[in-house]
Amino acid sequence: MPDDQSRLDLFIDRMVSQRACLDFAIAETRSMPGPVFELGLGNGRTYHHMVQNVKGRPVYVFERAVASHPDSTPPEDRVILGDVRETLPAALRRFGATASVIHADLGGHNREKNDAFARFVSPLIQPLLAEGGLMVSSDRTYFDDLTELPLPPGAVQGRCFVYRR
Amino acid sequence: MPDDQSRLDLFIDRMVSQRACLDFAIAETRSMPGPVFELGLGNGRTYHHMVQNVKGRPVYVFERAVASHPDSTPPEDRVILGDVRETLPAALRRFGATASVIHADLGGHNREKNDAFARFVSPLIQPLLAEGGLMVSSDRTYFDDLTELPLPPGAVQGRCFVYRR
Repeated sequence: MPDDQSRLDLFIDRMVSQRACLDFAIAETRSMPGPVFELGLGNGRTYHHMVQNVKGRPVYVFERAVASHPDSTPPEDRVILGDVRETLPAALRRFGATASVIHADLGGHNREKNDAFARFVSPLIQPLLAEGGLMVSSDRTYFDDLTELPLPPGAVQGRCFVYRR
Repeated sequence: MPDDQSRLDLFIDRMVSQRACLDFAIAETRSMPGPVFELGLGNGRTYHHMVQNVKGRPVYVFERAVASHPDSTPPEDRVILGDVRETLPAALRRFGATASVIHADLGGHNREKNDAFARFVSPLIQPLLAEGGLMVSSDRTYFDDLTELPLPPGAVQGRCFVYRR
């Protein structure tokens, strides 16, 4: 991070960028019927935002173990529990290439570990997206067939990434 | 929260307001020599922001147990460990009414519990502030001798509070 930015500054930039990119992705894909996938639930704030803003499409959460705020706990049939190494390939068999939006906030503190995980998980995510579907990520991800888009207004360069299939 | 705000919206408003109020409080008190008190360390993001922006004044953290990000862990002699019921009265004996800025993010999920804690802790905080010192809080607090100030630009009404002695 730049020397004059505090961790609070960086965090605010990340959250504001995430919201700007999600709102953009939801609006861009509003005519698509396919599901929205949230990889990682965490505290549930972003899930809450997506459920509130996505209309007419189911939002599924991929998570190892649900530990979210009670206000933001998804219904059981919208949670896909387990390790993404298994749940992403299983989702491809179940849904095919139908996702309209996929969001991933891998969000660990360790930059190198995040990047290694992003490289590993990218090829498992890519085939799930429908033609025209958007991927939003807080970390750089690695796709062969997706196009990185310019960030929407309000997002900060490097704090979020948007890709289109 | 308003019906159309998600928990992500609310959280961003809170973080942005906290930073705006802290930056305002630090600037307003820059000619005061007294220490800055951070009540609760948490992840350490706000502490990191304060240390980066407060010049020439020590920043002390009051915390039960340190569990912050390694980048934002205060030096041992700047941590006042223990329950605020004991550490705040002890700080009054040690520092007197000298604090230039006090910041508290009580920040639990339960609104009623937060409010009860705010009522309990307010009279322990108030005597620590120097004349002209500022108190910044994410929750409404209850002081007899402090004046609530209008929020600085960028802060959202109800998401942060600033008081002056």
